[in-house]
Amino acid sequence: MTAQSTPDVTPQNAPVRVAVLGCGVVGTEVVRLLTTQTADLAARVGAPLELVGVAVRNLATPRDPVVDPALLTDDAEVLVDRADIVVEVVGGIEPARTLLLRALRGGASVVTANKALLAEDGPTLYAAADAAGVDIYFEAAVAGAIPLVRPVRESLTGDRVRRVLGIVNGTTNFVLDRMATDGLDLDAAVAEAQELGYAEADPTADVEGYDAAAKAAILASLAFHTRVSLADVDRQGITGVTAEDVAWAARTGHVVKLLAIAEHRPADQDGPEGVQVRVHPALVPQDHPLAGVRGAFNAVFVEAEAAGELMFYGRGAGGAPTASAVLGDLVSAARHRVHGGRGPAESFYAALPVLPARAARTRYQIRLDVTDRPGVLAQVATVLAEHGVSIEAVRQSVQPAEAVARLVITTHEATEAALSATVAAIAEHDSVREVVSVLRVEGV
Amino acid sequence: MTAQSTPDVTPQNAPVRVAVLGCGVVGTEVVRLLTTQTADLAARVGAPLELVGVAVRNLATPRDPVVDPALLTDDAEVLVDRADIVVEVVGGIEPARTLLLRALRGGASVVTANKALLAEDGPTLYAAADAAGVDIYFEAAVAGAIPLVRPVRESLTGDRVRRVLGIVNGTTNFVLDRMATDGLDLDAAVAEAQELGYAEADPTADVEGYDAAAKAAILASLAFHTRVSLADVDRQGITGVTAEDVAWAARTGHVVKLLAIAEHRPADQDGPEGVQVRVHPALVPQDHPLAGVRGAFNAVFVEAEAAGELMFYGRGAGGAPTASAVLGDLVSAARHRVHGGRGPAESFYAALPVLPARAARTRYQIRLDVTDRPGVLAQVATVLAEHGVSIEAVRQSVQPAEAVARLVITTHEATEAALSATVAAIAEHDSVREVVSVLRVEGV
Repeated sequence: MTAQSTPDVTPQNAPVRVAVLGCGVVGTEVVRLLTTQTADLAARVGAPLELVGVAVRNLATPRDPVVDPALLTDDAEVLVDRADIVVEVVGGIEPARTLLLRALRGGASVVTANKALLAEDGPTLYAAADAAGVDIYFEAAVAGAIPLVRPVRESLTGDRVRRVLGIVNGTTNFVLDRMATDGLDLDAAVAEAQELGYAEADPTADVEGYDAAAKAAILASLAFHTRVSLADVDRQGITGVTAEDVAWAARTGHVVKLLAIAEHRPADQDGPEGVQVRVHPALVPQDHPLAGVRGAFNAVFVEAEAAGELMFYGRGAGGAPTASAVLGDLVSAARHRVHGGRGPAESFYAALPVLPARAARTRYQIRLDVTDRPGVLAQVATVLAEHGVSIEAVRQSVQPAEAVARLVITTHEATEAALSATVAAIAEHDSVREVVSVLRVEGV
Repeated sequence: MTAQSTPDVTPQNAPVRVAVLGCGVVGTEVVRLLTTQTADLAARVGAPLELVGVAVRNLATPRDPVVDPALLTDDAEVLVDRADIVVEVVGGIEPARTLLLRALRGGASVVTANKALLAEDGPTLYAAADAAGVDIYFEAAVAGAIPLVRPVRESLTGDRVRRVLGIVNGTTNFVLDRMATDGLDLDAAVAEAQELGYAEADPTADVEGYDAAAKAAILASLAFHTRVSLADVDRQGITGVTAEDVAWAARTGHVVKLLAIAEHRPADQDGPEGVQVRVHPALVPQDHPLAGVRGAFNAVFVEAEAAGELMFYGRGAGGAPTASAVLGDLVSAARHRVHGGRGPAESFYAALPVLPARAARTRYQIRLDVTDRPGVLAQVATVLAEHGVSIEAVRQSVQPAEAVARLVITTHEATEAALSATVAAIAEHDSVREVVSVLRVEGV
């Protein structure tokens, strides 16, 4: 789009100086958008955005030609001190934290994509931004290009969010999708994701659910006006998910997805008001919109009291999509530099207790191998009933050659505590050979 | 959620005075949210929101008990003059325009759900807001509770939007859904929508596409930084859609939806750079996410250069969802009153020409009845070829008793001009009894 007129750009509006920390996939795309849209950005901000430098660890690493070598520096501190706005796309806790605190304390605004840092130590950053009266924006930290932070902390701020539920990690979604479509086992699917650049050489942060948990913590903090950190999230990755789990999911009309779920729990007979945040693989019915989220895409449902159910869908990772989110934040922060005002500060006034996810009530699917003889189903059902866990459906398939029957039991809603006790009791029963798997069922 | 601490609410922050114009379904829900969330809203704004009055046309009309009768007034002008922020949920051009201009010129910020007024005369309102240095927010004017205005004008402002495409009118979506699921004809489906409160007694604004066109104009203005008004939108409603169209759509793997489409068109050999905005019924493939949007829900795809394809989904109308969007805007405007700063102003610097939708290239499905004799298909295909319209697929079904064959031709992309000329030529052909219908195909 060509800027045919730029009414807001007047000589008195000095350039806004932007420093970029990090020049990997995202940083390169941020530089590309900054340098190829200068007229548009100037018109939208009301002043030119001047890229004053790009901090890198190693000056000798080859870079995309869009990055002017003269802008590169390995002295991030000096660069930070020269900027009005610092864009951080390095990731990790240090040196990102030290640099961003230096920026904020020096009066620069911050735009960051660093979910790990925000989930571990966000309040320290927010407090520094607040003390300096500057902005900290982080749309790119959650679900890449999908506007989610801004809708939750601004659009829905006059409503009460009840639940956030979705797929926020593209790597694991790609892996589970490959397992479902081609029957790959986990290791083969992870290897393929690595070959395609969807997974890191060390895939731990993704497959163990740490990345999703950090995003869940950030979303929960915003949605419930309560501080939630990574340590508050009940986290289970996909390393326990087998090809057999995925195949059985399909046979029972489900798809296995790694879900991030943050819920507001009202006070009731089971306990006090609070927030529950969890990340775990779950069975999702095949006709649920989340079941159709393929490859490395993300999709998040937000349920609010007045708004009802909203869904946001798009690319959750990748250089250009993440850079788009960074640039949106950058324009907001720059507009405040030019025209005054500030973006929303941290809101944690509700200060709700973070409750253990064990108290969350969900449905479960239990698969177990039992001795194939009359009355076993009745015996197992009795164990569930004794533990107050109600059965919604049972499917039994007999393998006569082995004198074994496979039971697939879907329960009504139960707490994890009640379910665990039930499963332990079932496992001890004479007729039960093995409890093969226990998976939550969500999205029904 | 209980406000356990309200750190921002200090005695020096005077209440922000809010006037609500209109007390219909949406106005009542706005009052409900304002009066049942006072502590939360005060904490989020940093000052109490004080509802100073609700303007109504007729004081004698019975109201929901949540509306304190002492707040009602039929003198909207006096009420407007007492407010820091005016919420307008009356709709229509007048007296809304006069009242909002009075509010803005008097220094009050405005939150409005009035798509018709914005699409007809938005620039006058924006200019008044700009001159007074106050906010005008209108998330509720487009797609109800779905955050769409804010994502497009803030989150994606560092990116280049290429296209906005979606279902933005719940009434017509309900009607088309009923036609598809139960084979109702249009009149019966509209009557049912009226009974259920989804359609007005006079359904013209919805079924003729005016409501969708107003929303398309607003979204196009934001997406392309260009003024687009209702008159710029190429609009066709659903009144021409027959039960037979809907049934044939299903037979060819499609669903009929009323789509709003705003596109940025780069300069090429066909013409200059510009914006095309159109609303019309279209065939959408059954496996496209928009095909699955049922009942009165809305869903909008936004395609941007860096972000890729995003989708937003939720309730596009209704009292509580629309009120949620109003409250989000109200909190933003109120925060600016308390803490300083302003929301984004109108951005129309790109000033792109609005091109006629006739230049938009899309695929078409043409259904025609022809004489059932050898060679007719070849003749019709020749007519298309002569007009430069390329055929993607043809389906022929013969009704021997009538010596008639039904041809269903799906074309590759063609301009409306080329297609119209083609259809006119086909209609004149000896072997062609009737061109039964011509529908665009989108979402492929």
